[in-house]
Amino acid sequence: MRIGAIEAGGTKFVCGIGDEEGRILDRISFPTERPEPTLGKVIDYFRDKGVEAIGIGTFGPINIDPASPMYGHVTTTPKPGWTGYDFLGTLKKEFDVPFGWDTDVNAAAYGEAKWGAAKGLDSCAYFTIGTGIGVGVYAEGKLVHGLVHPEGGHIPVKRHPDDTFEGFCPYHKDCLEGVAAGPAIERRWGVKGSELGADHPAWAMEAYYIGQAVATAVLMLSPKKIILGGGVMKQEHLLPMIREEAKRYLNGYVRDERVLAGMDEYVVAPGLGEIAGLYGALALGLAAAGRA
Amino acid sequence: MRIGAIEAGGTKFVCGIGDEEGRILDRISFPTERPEPTLGKVIDYFRDKGVEAIGIGTFGPINIDPASPMYGHVTTTPKPGWTGYDFLGTLKKEFDVPFGWDTDVNAAAYGEAKWGAAKGLDSCAYFTIGTGIGVGVYAEGKLVHGLVHPEGGHIPVKRHPDDTFEGFCPYHKDCLEGVAAGPAIERRWGVKGSELGADHPAWAMEAYYIGQAVATAVLMLSPKKIILGGGVMKQEHLLPMIREEAKRYLNGYVRDERVLAGMDEYVVAPGLGEIAGLYGALALGLAAAGRA
Repeated sequence: MRIGAIEAGGTKFVCGIGDEEGRILDRISFPTERPEPTLGKVIDYFRDKGVEAIGIGTFGPINIDPASPMYGHVTTTPKPGWTGYDFLGTLKKEFDVPFGWDTDVNAAAYGEAKWGAAKGLDSCAYFTIGTGIGVGVYAEGKLVHGLVHPEGGHIPVKRHPDDTFEGFCPYHKDCLEGVAAGPAIERRWGVKGSELGADHPAWAMEAYYIGQAVATAVLMLSPKKIILGGGVMKQEHLLPMIREEAKRYLNGYVRDERVLAGMDEYVVAPGLGEIAGLYGALALGLAAAGRA
Repeated sequence: MRIGAIEAGGTKFVCGIGDEEGRILDRISFPTERPEPTLGKVIDYFRDKGVEAIGIGTFGPINIDPASPMYGHVTTTPKPGWTGYDFLGTLKKEFDVPFGWDTDVNAAAYGEAKWGAAKGLDSCAYFTIGTGIGVGVYAEGKLVHGLVHPEGGHIPVKRHPDDTFEGFCPYHKDCLEGVAAGPAIERRWGVKGSELGADHPAWAMEAYYIGQAVATAVLMLSPKKIILGGGVMKQEHLLPMIREEAKRYLNGYVRDERVLAGMDEYVVAPGLGEIAGLYGALALGLAAAGRA
């Protein structure tokens, strides 16, 4: 069985072909431009590949309500040309196969639950922390959609007492994303996070915020695994600091050994590495083909 | 079909008999004392009632992991005698029927989804705001359990700039519950909330905090309905203020008309009033009897 997978990110697209065993047989990537040339490359790639279904995990926000006339559209984004674009419809015109369609982070959560760090579990939350912050939620064996879809990057967080940066989120100023996404680090300290040493105070502040996000996920969703991915998490010293901060915030309230102990097995890096999103898209495609 | 329902609250127990149509045929209530005399009254009530199943929605935290040896126990609570108590096991010894067992707030969310404000929807979040704050989560047609169960009363919130009260949560000081549950209002202003006029600044501050909780629920869970119950919500002027604060926080980011408009139909009072919990316990009992 050949399944198409599309990981549509804000900076690059990854397209691939996979099978029902979760093997990626082929893949390409290219920068995200305006929608028409970008989708043109996607169509060129899948043409004559003989895929039986295509799964798409995409940046958003997007409309994932099958009952809506705007299903499959990007709703609103600062990316030029993409607001209101009929992403799914454009591909459906070209390929007469079942499609899976969800957010990039929901796809990543699904991929991790199927083949990665949350394999065998019926719940997990997947955070990506990069130029923005997104959250995918898998609960009771299902991806959570609801009204629209989770947008956990924008939750309120308590300000770090030493933080004088006002936050950069155009909607909420100092929400989680506004104080903890990559651009917040760069604007606060004047250099990119990747140029800051592991002992720079930037990381304690970053862990303070991401630790609150982890605690909020534990308290609102009680997932069986919390997975932290994205560019900022490439700083390997950060993950243990985040575990400490989450534990410090929760302060023994959630009485489960997986949380009370060091959280080393509970708050983890993606098991599928940087291509969790592509695996997730493959999983969405398999589900669309009735092979979940 | 006669189904037993137990709403086990921190201050009172409500026991009832219901049927598969969601009718409550009989009920009694009594104060919550130490576990033995309290469960004694529960057992006396259901003896000879001929129930085919019993649903329990209880204060907690509790163990709801069927694979755990501590399933059915209260895990930890300041209530004398209840920490570690085998609540479910005590009843199972007396009644040889299927049992449903969940948190009071998950039960209330389930009752509201079955017969109340979220009827016909496959997701909702139910907050109770009283002497404590609890959250029940129903997503994709299932109650959310996961690692333990949601404990959304303890999420971090941004401090109101005029709030000098340090918060009373013994674990987190100024988490949501620590600054917005009933006792926080009383300690901050020196009188009970029920004695404060509708124009007292206490309510703007309360709405500021509960509005953040609503926004966090929208962002983390994207439920199709958010239901606010509990003693504090008896102040009827509070609900519209909370809607305004949630809308102000979200600031147009979640582009769905149900959120962008006044939220009058989205953030609502319980449809089942004060006995949402008992209806929820009935729904749990029906599910245990295979009649969900």
